[in-house]
Amino acid sequence: MLSKNTLKFIKSLHLKKFRKAEGLFFVEGVKNVEEMVQHGFNIRYLLYTDRYLEAHVHTLNRVPKGANLISVSERELQQASALQLNNYVLAVAEIPEPQGAPTLQVDQLVLALDGVRDPGNLGTLLRIADWYGIREIFVSADCAELYNPKVLQASMGSFTRVRVHEVDLPLWLSSLQVPIYGAFLEGASVHQYPWQQGGVLLMGSESHGISEACRPYVSQALTIPRFGGAESLNVGVATAILIDHFKRQQP
Amino acid sequence: MLSKNTLKFIKSLHLKKFRKAEGLFFVEGVKNVEEMVQHGFNIRYLLYTDRYLEAHVHTLNRVPKGANLISVSERELQQASALQLNNYVLAVAEIPEPQGAPTLQVDQLVLALDGVRDPGNLGTLLRIADWYGIREIFVSADCAELYNPKVLQASMGSFTRVRVHEVDLPLWLSSLQVPIYGAFLEGASVHQYPWQQGGVLLMGSESHGISEACRPYVSQALTIPRFGGAESLNVGVATAILIDHFKRQQP
Repeated sequence: MLSKNTLKFIKSLHLKKFRKAEGLFFVEGVKNVEEMVQHGFNIRYLLYTDRYLEAHVHTLNRVPKGANLISVSERELQQASALQLNNYVLAVAEIPEPQGAPTLQVDQLVLALDGVRDPGNLGTLLRIADWYGIREIFVSADCAELYNPKVLQASMGSFTRVRVHEVDLPLWLSSLQVPIYGAFLEGASVHQYPWQQGGVLLMGSESHGISEACRPYVSQALTIPRFGGAESLNVGVATAILIDHFKRQQP
Repeated sequence: MLSKNTLKFIKSLHLKKFRKAEGLFFVEGVKNVEEMVQHGFNIRYLLYTDRYLEAHVHTLNRVPKGANLISVSERELQQASALQLNNYVLAVAEIPEPQGAPTLQVDQLVLALDGVRDPGNLGTLLRIADWYGIREIFVSADCAELYNPKVLQASMGSFTRVRVHEVDLPLWLSSLQVPIYGAFLEGASVHQYPWQQGGVLLMGSESHGISEACRPYVSQALTIPRFGGAESLNVGVATAILIDHFKRQQP
Protein backbone atom coordinates (compact mmCIF):
# COMPACT_ATOMS: atom_id res chain seq x y z
CA MET A 1 0.00 0.00 0.00
CA LEU A 2 1.44 3.30 -1.14
CA SER A 3 0.86 6.34 1.07
CA LYS A 4 -0.14 9.60 -0.55
CA ASN A 5 3.02 11.23 0.77
CA THR A 6 5.33 8.61 -0.68
CA LEU A 7 3.54 8.77 -4.03
CA LYS A 8 3.85 12.54 -4.05
CA PHE A 9 7.51 12.29 -3.13
CA ILE A 10 8.31 9.82 -5.92
CA LYS A 11 6.40 11.89 -8.44
CA SER A 12 8.43 14.94 -7.46
CA LEU A 13 11.52 13.01 -8.64
CA HIS A 14 10.16 13.12 -12.18
CA LEU A 15 11.56 16.65 -12.17
CA LYS A 16 15.25 17.41 -12.36
CA LYS A 17 15.16 20.12 -9.69
CA PHE A 18 13.79 17.72 -7.08
CA ARG A 19 16.22 14.97 -8.08
CA LYS A 20 19.02 17.48 -7.55
CA ALA A 21 17.65 18.81 -4.26
CA GLU A 22 17.08 15.33 -2.82
CA GLY A 23 20.10 13.61 -4.36
CA LEU A 24 17.76 10.82 -5.46
CA PHE A 25 16.54 9.36 -8.74
CA PHE A 26 14.19 6.58 -9.75
CA VAL A 27 14.39 3.72 -12.18
CA GLU A 28 11.73 1.46 -13.64
CA GLY A 29 11.58 -1.98 -15.16
CA VAL A 30 12.86 -5.41 -14.27
CA LYS A 31 16.20 -5.19 -16.06
CA ASN A 32 17.15 -1.73 -14.75
CA VAL A 33 16.25 -2.58 -11.17
CA GLU A 34 18.12 -5.87 -11.30
CA GLU A 35 21.26 -4.11 -12.52
CA MET A 36 20.95 -1.55 -9.73
CA VAL A 37 20.71 -4.21 -7.06
CA GLN A 38 23.63 -6.07 -8.59
CA HIS A 39 25.81 -2.96 -8.71
CA GLY A 40 25.12 -1.96 -5.11
CA PHE A 41 23.18 1.26 -5.60
CA ASN A 42 21.75 2.60 -2.34
CA ILE A 43 18.06 1.89 -2.81
CA ARG A 44 15.67 3.88 -0.64
CA TYR A 45 12.31 2.64 -1.92
CA LEU A 46 11.36 -0.32 -4.03
CA LEU A 47 7.75 -0.50 -5.20
CA TYR A 48 6.74 -3.88 -6.58
CA THR A 49 3.55 -5.57 -7.74
CA ASP A 50 2.44 -9.17 -7.17
CA ARG A 51 3.43 -9.87 -10.76
CA TYR A 52 7.00 -8.79 -9.95
CA LEU A 53 7.07 -10.75 -6.69
CA GLU A 54 6.10 -13.97 -8.48
CA ALA A 55 8.87 -13.82 -11.05
CA HIS A 56 11.67 -11.88 -9.33
CA VAL A 57 11.67 -12.74 -5.66
CA HIS A 58 15.42 -13.51 -5.95
CA THR A 59 16.08 -9.85 -6.80
CA LEU A 60 13.86 -8.64 -3.95
CA ASN A 61 15.79 -10.84 -1.53
CA ARG A 62 19.05 -9.21 -2.58
CA VAL A 63 17.93 -5.64 -1.92
CA PRO A 64 20.09 -4.42 1.01
CA LYS A 65 18.48 -3.79 4.40
CA GLY A 66 17.38 -0.24 4.89
CA ALA A 67 15.38 -0.02 1.67
CA ASN A 68 11.64 0.42 2.01
CA LEU A 69 10.09 -2.50 0.13
CA ILE A 70 6.52 -1.55 -0.65
CA SER A 71 4.00 -3.94 -2.17
CA VAL A 72 1.71 -1.92 -4.44
CA SER A 73 -1.18 -2.51 -6.81
CA GLU A 74 -0.56 -2.12 -10.52
CA ARG A 75 -2.67 1.01 -10.42
CA GLU A 76 -0.56 2.53 -7.64
CA LEU A 77 2.66 1.71 -9.50
CA GLN A 78 1.33 3.31 -12.65
CA GLN A 79 0.58 6.50 -10.73
CA ALA A 80 4.20 6.75 -9.60
CA SER A 81 5.56 5.83 -13.04
CA ALA A 82 6.94 7.97 -15.84
CA LEU A 83 6.29 5.19 -18.36
CA GLN A 84 3.17 4.49 -20.38
CA LEU A 85 3.08 1.03 -18.87
CA ASN A 86 4.84 -0.24 -15.79
CA ASN A 87 3.24 -3.14 -13.96
CA TYR A 88 6.32 -4.60 -12.31
CA VAL A 89 8.71 -2.46 -10.33
CA LEU A 90 10.12 0.99 -9.58
CA ALA A 91 13.10 1.83 -7.38
CA VAL A 92 14.23 5.09 -5.82
CA ALA A 93 17.96 5.28 -5.14
CA GLU A 94 20.66 7.72 -4.14
CA ILE A 95 22.54 9.52 -6.89
CA PRO A 96 26.12 8.29 -6.46
CA GLU A 97 28.83 10.81 -5.59
CA PRO A 98 30.68 11.99 -8.69
CA GLN A 99 33.83 9.95 -9.10
CA GLY A 100 37.13 11.42 -10.12
CA ALA A 101 37.88 11.14 -13.80
CA PRO A 102 40.67 8.69 -14.59
CA THR A 103 43.87 9.63 -16.36
CA LEU A 104 43.41 8.75 -20.00
CA GLN A 105 45.63 6.19 -21.70
CA VAL A 106 46.36 5.83 -25.39
CA ASP A 107 45.47 2.14 -25.32
CA GLN A 108 41.88 2.94 -24.37
CA LEU A 109 39.10 4.88 -26.00
CA VAL A 110 36.67 7.05 -24.04
CA LEU A 111 33.66 8.89 -25.37
CA ALA A 112 33.00 12.64 -25.13
CA LEU A 113 29.60 14.11 -26.00
CA ASP A 114 29.10 17.70 -27.03
CA GLY A 115 25.53 18.96 -26.66
CA VAL A 116 23.66 15.66 -27.00
CA ARG A 117 20.37 16.98 -25.64
CA ASP A 118 18.03 14.17 -26.64
CA PRO A 119 17.58 11.83 -23.64
CA GLY A 120 16.88 8.79 -25.85
CA ASN A 121 20.12 9.39 -27.74
CA LEU A 122 22.15 9.73 -24.54
CA GLY A 123 20.66 6.48 -23.18
CA THR A 124 21.43 4.66 -26.43
CA LEU A 125 25.00 6.00 -26.29
CA LEU A 126 25.44 4.58 -22.77
CA ARG A 127 24.26 1.19 -24.06
CA ILE A 128 26.66 1.32 -27.03
CA ALA A 129 29.61 2.36 -24.83
CA ASP A 130 28.76 -0.50 -22.47
CA TRP A 131 28.61 -3.03 -25.33
CA TYR A 132 32.12 -2.04 -26.38
CA GLY A 133 33.52 -1.98 -22.85
CA ILE A 134 33.97 1.79 -22.78
CA ARG A 135 33.70 2.73 -19.11
CA GLU A 136 33.95 6.51 -19.16
CA ILE A 137 31.83 9.11 -20.93
CA PHE A 138 32.53 12.83 -20.63
CA VAL A 139 29.58 15.11 -21.29
CA SER A 140 29.18 18.86 -21.74
CA ALA A 141 26.80 20.62 -19.37
CA ASP A 142 24.21 21.00 -22.13
CA CYS A 143 23.84 17.26 -22.68
CA ALA A 144 20.70 15.54 -21.36
CA GLU A 145 20.83 14.81 -17.63
CA LEU A 146 21.97 11.27 -16.81
CA TYR A 147 19.16 10.69 -14.31
CA ASN A 148 16.40 11.77 -16.69
CA PRO A 149 14.01 8.76 -16.74
CA LYS A 150 14.19 8.58 -20.55
CA VAL A 151 17.97 8.35 -20.48
CA LEU A 152 17.92 5.54 -17.93
CA GLN A 153 15.19 3.69 -19.81
CA ALA A 154 17.02 3.85 -23.16
CA SER A 155 20.28 2.74 -21.51
CA MET A 156 18.74 -0.67 -20.73
CA GLY A 157 20.67 -0.95 -17.48
CA SER A 158 23.99 0.22 -18.93
CA PHE A 159 23.96 3.31 -16.71
CA THR A 160 25.12 1.04 -13.89
CA ARG A 161 28.34 0.10 -15.71
CA VAL A 162 29.36 3.29 -17.48
CA ARG A 163 30.57 6.36 -15.57
CA VAL A 164 29.40 9.72 -16.81
CA HIS A 165 31.50 12.79 -15.99
CA GLU A 166 30.14 16.26 -16.59
CA VAL A 167 32.97 18.56 -17.61
CA ASP A 168 33.69 21.93 -19.16
CA LEU A 169 34.31 20.20 -22.46
CA PRO A 170 36.66 22.69 -24.23
CA LEU A 171 38.67 23.17 -21.04
CA TRP A 172 38.91 19.44 -20.43
CA LEU A 173 39.87 18.70 -24.05
CA SER A 174 42.56 21.39 -23.90
CA SER A 175 44.16 19.65 -20.92
CA LEU A 176 44.56 16.24 -22.58
CA GLN A 177 47.72 14.55 -23.84
CA VAL A 178 45.96 11.87 -25.92
CA PRO A 179 44.60 11.95 -29.48
CA ILE A 180 41.13 13.45 -29.89
CA TYR A 181 39.07 11.96 -32.71
CA GLY A 182 36.08 13.94 -33.92
CA ALA A 183 33.25 12.85 -36.19
CA PHE A 184 32.79 15.24 -39.11
CA LEU A 185 31.14 14.98 -42.49
CA GLU A 186 34.54 15.70 -44.02
CA GLY A 187 37.42 13.82 -42.48
CA ALA A 188 39.50 10.72 -43.06
CA SER A 189 37.37 7.73 -44.05
CA VAL A 190 37.11 5.39 -41.10
CA HIS A 191 37.21 2.54 -43.65
CA GLN A 192 40.80 3.41 -44.47
CA TYR A 193 42.05 5.03 -41.27
CA PRO A 194 44.57 2.86 -39.39
CA TRP A 195 43.12 3.45 -35.95
CA GLN A 196 45.79 2.14 -33.63
CA GLN A 197 45.81 4.57 -30.71
CA GLY A 198 42.99 5.25 -28.28
CA GLY A 199 42.16 8.56 -26.69
CA VAL A 200 38.88 10.45 -26.93
CA LEU A 201 36.12 10.01 -29.49
CA LEU A 202 34.23 13.31 -29.57
CA MET A 203 30.69 13.32 -30.96
CA GLY A 204 28.47 16.35 -31.51
CA SER A 205 24.72 16.61 -31.55
CA GLU A 206 22.73 15.65 -34.65
CA SER A 207 21.55 19.17 -35.23
CA HIS A 208 24.71 21.14 -34.49
CA GLY A 209 27.65 18.77 -34.73
CA ILE A 210 30.79 19.45 -32.72
CA SER A 211 30.74 23.00 -31.33
CA GLU A 212 33.10 25.76 -32.41
CA ALA A 213 34.57 25.81 -28.93
CA CYS A 214 35.62 22.14 -29.10
CA ARG A 215 36.65 21.92 -32.74
CA PRO A 216 40.23 23.26 -32.33
CA TYR A 217 41.11 20.38 -30.02
CA VAL A 218 40.28 17.62 -32.51
CA SER A 219 43.53 16.05 -33.67
CA GLN A 220 41.94 13.66 -36.18
CA ALA A 221 38.68 14.21 -38.06
CA LEU A 222 36.94 10.97 -39.06
CA THR A 223 34.08 10.33 -41.46
CA ILE A 224 31.77 7.42 -42.13
CA PRO A 225 31.59 7.09 -45.92
CA ARG A 226 28.18 7.68 -47.41
CA PHE A 227 26.92 5.73 -50.43
CA GLY A 228 23.34 6.97 -50.78
CA GLY A 229 20.93 9.81 -50.20
CA ALA A 230 20.39 10.29 -46.45
CA GLU A 231 21.95 13.48 -45.14
CA SER A 232 23.14 12.11 -41.84
CA LEU A 233 23.12 9.20 -39.44
CA ASN A 234 21.68 9.27 -35.94
CA VAL A 235 24.40 10.11 -33.38
CA GLY A 236 24.05 6.71 -31.70
CA VAL A 237 24.43 4.86 -34.98
CA ALA A 238 27.44 6.96 -36.03
CA THR A 239 29.14 6.50 -32.65
CA ALA A 240 28.66 2.74 -32.76
CA ILE A 241 30.14 2.45 -36.27
CA LEU A 242 33.20 4.48 -35.26
CA ILE A 243 33.85 2.59 -32.02
CA ASP A 244 33.41 -0.70 -33.84
CA HIS A 245 36.16 0.27 -36.29
CA PHE A 246 38.47 1.22 -33.43
CA LYS A 247 37.82 -2.10 -31.67
CA ARG A 248 38.34 -4.08 -34.87
CA GLN A 249 41.85 -2.73 -35.19
CA GLN A 250 42.99 -3.29 -31.63
CA PRO A 251 45.45 -6.14 -31.12
CA MET B 1 -8.39 28.35 -43.65
CA LEU B 2 -9.00 24.71 -42.92
CA SER B 3 -12.57 23.42 -43.19
CA LYS B 4 -13.87 21.12 -40.48
CA ASN B 5 -14.37 18.38 -43.03
CA THR B 6 -10.81 18.54 -44.33
CA LEU B 7 -9.44 18.55 -40.79
CA LYS B 8 -11.58 15.55 -39.92
CA PHE B 9 -10.44 13.77 -43.07
CA ILE B 10 -6.75 14.36 -42.38
CA LYS B 11 -7.13 13.28 -38.78
CA SER B 12 -8.74 10.03 -39.96
CA LEU B 13 -5.45 9.29 -41.76
CA HIS B 14 -3.73 9.05 -38.37
CA LEU B 15 -5.26 5.56 -38.34
CA LYS B 16 -3.97 2.71 -40.47
CA LYS B 17 -7.42 1.49 -41.49
CA PHE B 18 -8.33 4.83 -43.03
CA ARG B 19 -4.94 5.15 -44.74
CA LYS B 20 -5.59 1.75 -46.27
CA ALA B 21 -9.19 2.49 -47.24
CA GLU B 22 -8.31 5.84 -48.84
CA GLY B 23 -4.93 4.87 -50.29
CA LEU B 24 -3.53 8.05 -48.74
CA PHE B 25 -1.00 8.96 -46.08
CA PHE B 26 0.33 12.16 -44.58
CA VAL B 27 3.75 13.51 -43.85
CA GLU B 28 4.94 16.39 -41.71
CA GLY B 29 7.96 18.62 -41.51
CA VAL B 30 10.00 20.68 -43.94
CA LYS B 31 12.51 17.98 -44.87
CA ASN B 32 9.96 15.19 -45.46
CA VAL B 33 7.69 17.38 -47.56
CA GLU B 34 10.58 18.68 -49.64
CA GLU B 35 11.70 15.12 -50.39
CA MET B 36 8.16 14.17 -51.41
CA VAL B 37 7.88 17.08 -53.82
CA GLN B 38 11.29 16.27 -55.24
CA HIS B 39 10.45 12.60 -55.73
CA GLY B 40 7.15 13.28 -57.47
CA PHE B 41 4.69 11.91 -54.94
CA ASN B 42 1.08 12.69 -55.85
CA ILE B 43 0.21 15.30 -53.28
CA ARG B 44 -3.49 15.88 -52.61
CA TYR B 45 -3.35 18.45 -49.83
CA LEU B 46 -0.59 20.65 -48.57
CA LEU B 47 -1.27 22.63 -45.39
CA TYR B 48 1.25 25.36 -44.71
CA THR B 49 1.66 28.22 -42.26
CA ASP B 50 2.98 31.73 -42.92
CA ARG B 51 6.21 30.68 -41.31
CA TYR B 52 6.59 27.94 -43.96
CA LEU B 53 5.62 30.28 -46.80
CA GLU B 54 8.32 32.75 -45.82
CA ALA B 55 11.16 30.26 -45.87
CA HIS B 56 10.07 27.61 -48.37
CA VAL B 57 8.14 29.28 -51.14
CA HIS B 58 10.42 27.52 -53.67
CA THR B 59 9.08 24.15 -52.49
CA LEU B 60 5.48 25.37 -52.63
CA ASN B 61 6.03 26.53 -56.20
CA ARG B 62 7.17 23.06 -57.20
CA VAL B 63 4.09 21.24 -55.90
CA PRO B 64 2.34 19.87 -59.03
CA LYS B 65 -1.01 21.31 -60.12
CA GLY B 66 -3.97 19.44 -58.70
CA ALA B 67 -2.79 19.60 -55.10
CA ASN B 68 -4.92 21.61 -52.70
CA LEU B 69 -2.61 24.20 -51.19
CA ILE B 70 -4.21 25.43 -47.99
CA SER B 71 -2.85 28.30 -45.94
CA VAL B 72 -3.55 27.55 -42.29
CA SER B 73 -2.85 29.06 -38.89
CA GLU B 74 -0.33 27.35 -36.64
CA ARG B 75 -3.22 26.32 -34.42
CA GLU B 76 -5.07 24.67 -37.30
CA LEU B 77 -1.93 22.83 -38.41
CA GLN B 78 -1.36 21.55 -34.90
CA GLN B 79 -4.89 20.17 -34.83
CA ALA B 80 -4.22 18.10 -37.96
CA SER B 81 -0.79 17.02 -36.76
CA ALA B 82 0.41 13.79 -35.15
CA LEU B 83 3.47 15.56 -33.76
CA GLN B 84 3.88 17.41 -30.50
CA LEU B 85 4.92 20.46 -32.42
CA ASN B 86 4.40 21.22 -36.08
CA ASN B 87 4.23 24.86 -37.09
CA TYR B 88 5.36 24.56 -40.70
CA VAL B 89 3.77 22.07 -43.07
CA LEU B 90 1.80 18.86 -43.54
CA ALA B 91 1.13 17.05 -46.82
CA VAL B 92 -1.39 14.36 -47.74
CA ALA B 93 -0.31 12.16 -50.64
CA GLU B 94 -1.28 8.99 -52.45
CA ILE B 95 0.29 5.74 -51.31
CA PRO B 96 2.32 4.63 -54.34
CA GLU B 97 1.39 1.36 -56.05
CA PRO B 98 3.55 -1.51 -54.81
CA GLN B 99 6.43 -2.00 -57.22
CA GLY B 100 7.67 -5.36 -58.34
CA ALA B 101 10.64 -6.64 -56.37
CA PRO B 102 13.86 -6.71 -58.37
CA THR B 103 15.89 -9.84 -59.04
CA LEU B 104 18.64 -9.92 -56.47
CA GLN B 105 22.29 -9.82 -57.48
CA VAL B 106 25.30 -11.00 -55.53
CA ASP B 107 27.09 -7.70 -56.01
CA GLN B 108 24.40 -5.87 -54.06
CA LEU B 109 23.09 -6.09 -50.54
CA VAL B 110 19.42 -5.71 -49.66
CA LEU B 111 17.88 -5.64 -46.21
CA ALA B 112 15.18 -7.98 -44.89
CA LEU B 113 13.40 -7.28 -41.60
CA ASP B 114 11.70 -9.97 -39.55
CA GLY B 115 9.13 -8.65 -37.07
CA VAL B 116 10.53 -5.15 -36.51
CA ARG B 117 7.39 -3.78 -34.87
CA ASP B 118 8.70 -0.56 -33.40
CA PRO B 119 7.94 2.32 -35.82
CA GLY B 120 10.93 4.38 -34.69
CA ASN B 121 13.25 1.46 -35.38
CA LEU B 122 11.79 0.89 -38.86
CA GLY B 123 12.18 4.58 -39.71
CA THR B 124 15.79 4.58 -38.49
CA LEU B 125 16.46 1.48 -40.60
CA LEU B 126 15.16 3.26 -43.71
CA ARG B 127 17.53 6.14 -42.98
CA ILE B 128 20.48 3.77 -42.50
CA ALA B 129 19.68 1.83 -45.69
CA ASP B 130 19.45 5.13 -47.56
CA TRP B 131 22.82 6.32 -46.20
CA TYR B 132 24.46 3.17 -47.55
CA GLY B 133 22.67 3.29 -50.89
CA ILE B 134 20.55 0.20 -50.19
CA ARG B 135 17.44 0.71 -52.28
CA GLU B 136 15.29 -2.30 -51.36
CA ILE B 137 13.98 -3.47 -47.98
CA PHE B 138 11.87 -6.60 -47.63
CA VAL B 139 9.65 -6.71 -44.56
CA SER B 140 7.51 -9.40 -42.93
CA ALA B 141 3.81 -8.62 -42.47
CA ASP B 142 4.30 -8.10 -38.73
CA CYS B 143 6.75 -5.24 -39.16
CA ALA B 144 5.53 -1.70 -38.46
CA GLU B 145 3.55 -0.18 -41.32
CA LEU B 146 5.63 2.01 -43.63
CA TYR B 147 3.06 4.83 -43.62
CA ASN B 148 2.81 5.03 -39.85
CA PRO B 149 3.62 8.70 -39.05
CA LYS B 150 6.32 7.64 -36.59
CA VAL B 151 8.08 5.57 -39.25
CA LEU B 152 8.05 8.42 -41.75
CA GLN B 153 9.23 10.90 -39.14
CA ALA B 154 12.15 8.74 -38.02
CA SER B 155 13.15 8.08 -41.64
CA MET B 156 14.02 11.79 -42.09
CA GLY B 157 12.86 11.74 -45.71
CA SER B 158 14.58 8.46 -46.61
CA PHE B 159 11.21 6.79 -47.26
CA THR B 160 11.21 8.59 -50.60
CA ARG B 161 14.38 6.84 -51.78
CA VAL B 162 14.10 3.34 -50.35
CA ARG B 163 11.51 0.85 -51.63
CA VAL B 164 9.80 -1.31 -49.03
CA HIS B 165 8.32 -4.64 -50.13
CA GLU B 166 6.03 -6.58 -47.84
CA VAL B 167 6.58 -10.31 -48.38
CA ASP B 168 5.90 -13.68 -46.85
CA LEU B 169 9.43 -13.69 -45.48
CA PRO B 170 10.15 -17.44 -45.12
CA LEU B 171 8.60 -18.15 -48.54
CA TRP B 172 10.54 -15.31 -50.16
CA LEU B 173 13.83 -16.34 -48.52
CA SER B 174 13.29 -19.94 -49.67
CA SER B 175 13.04 -18.77 -53.27
CA LEU B 176 16.38 -16.93 -53.36
CA GLN B 177 19.61 -17.92 -55.08
CA VAL B 178 21.84 -15.44 -53.22
CA PRO B 179 23.58 -15.67 -49.83
CA ILE B 180 21.43 -14.83 -46.82
CA TYR B 181 23.32 -13.25 -43.91
CA GLY B 182 21.63 -13.28 -40.53
CA ALA B 183 22.56 -11.39 -37.37
CA PHE B 184 22.87 -13.72 -34.39
CA LEU B 185 24.58 -13.46 -31.01
CA GLU B 186 26.65 -16.48 -32.03
CA GLY B 187 28.00 -16.40 -35.54
CA ALA B 188 31.16 -15.49 -37.41
CA SER B 189 32.70 -12.24 -36.13
CA VAL B 190 32.02 -9.50 -38.64
CA HIS B 191 35.46 -8.14 -37.76
CA GLN B 192 37.07 -11.18 -39.36
CA TYR B 193 34.51 -12.24 -41.93
CA PRO B 194 35.66 -11.61 -45.52
CA TRP B 195 32.36 -10.24 -46.75
CA GLN B 196 32.76 -10.20 -50.52
CA GLN B 197 29.36 -11.22 -51.85
CA GLY B 198 26.10 -9.35 -51.45
CA GLY B 199 22.68 -10.90 -51.08
CA VAL B 200 20.28 -10.40 -48.20
CA LEU B 201 21.05 -9.11 -44.71
CA LEU B 202 18.29 -10.48 -42.47
CA MET B 203 17.67 -8.73 -39.14
CA GLY B 204 15.23 -9.83 -36.43
CA SER B 205 13.47 -7.77 -33.81
CA GLU B 206 15.25 -6.73 -30.62
CA SER B 207 13.01 -8.81 -28.44
CA HIS B 208 12.70 -11.99 -30.51
CA GLY B 209 15.58 -12.05 -32.95
CA ILE B 210 15.20 -13.88 -36.26
CA SER B 211 12.11 -16.11 -36.19
CA GLU B 212 12.21 -19.92 -36.25
CA ALA B 213 10.51 -19.86 -39.64
CA CYS B 214 13.27 -17.79 -41.23
CA ARG B 215 16.30 -19.24 -39.48
CA PRO B 216 16.79 -22.27 -41.77
CA TYR B 217 17.36 -20.03 -44.78
CA VAL B 218 20.31 -18.15 -43.28
CA SER B 219 23.46 -19.26 -45.08
CA GLN B 220 25.87 -17.21 -42.96
CA ALA B 221 25.37 -16.20 -39.33
CA LEU B 222 27.23 -13.02 -38.38
CA THR B 223 27.97 -11.48 -34.99
CA ILE B 224 29.15 -8.10 -33.80
CA PRO B 225 31.81 -8.80 -31.17
CA ARG B 226 30.95 -7.61 -27.69
CA PHE B 227 33.59 -6.22 -25.32
CA GLY B 228 31.50 -5.12 -22.34
CA GLY B 229 28.36 -5.65 -20.33
CA ALA B 230 25.33 -4.62 -22.42
CA GLU B 231 23.21 -7.58 -23.48
CA SER B 232 22.36 -6.34 -26.93
CA LEU B 233 22.50 -3.48 -29.37
CA ASN B 234 19.50 -1.69 -30.81
CA VAL B 235 18.46 -3.23 -34.16
CA GLY B 236 19.23 -0.02 -36.05
CA VAL B 237 22.71 0.23 -34.54
CA ALA B 238 23.46 -3.44 -35.25
CA THR B 239 22.22 -3.18 -38.84
CA ALA B 240 24.35 -0.09 -39.50
CA ILE B 241 27.50 -1.75 -38.15
CA LEU B 242 26.95 -4.83 -40.32
CA ILE B 243 26.20 -2.91 -43.52
CA ASP B 244 29.20 -0.68 -42.88
CA HIS B 245 31.46 -3.75 -42.76
CA PHE B 246 30.00 -5.04 -46.02
CA LYS B 247 30.54 -1.70 -47.71
CA ARG B 248 34.08 -1.40 -46.41
CA GLN B 249 35.02 -4.63 -48.16
CA GLN B 250 33.47 -3.91 -51.54
CA PRO B 251 35.90 -3.10 -54.33
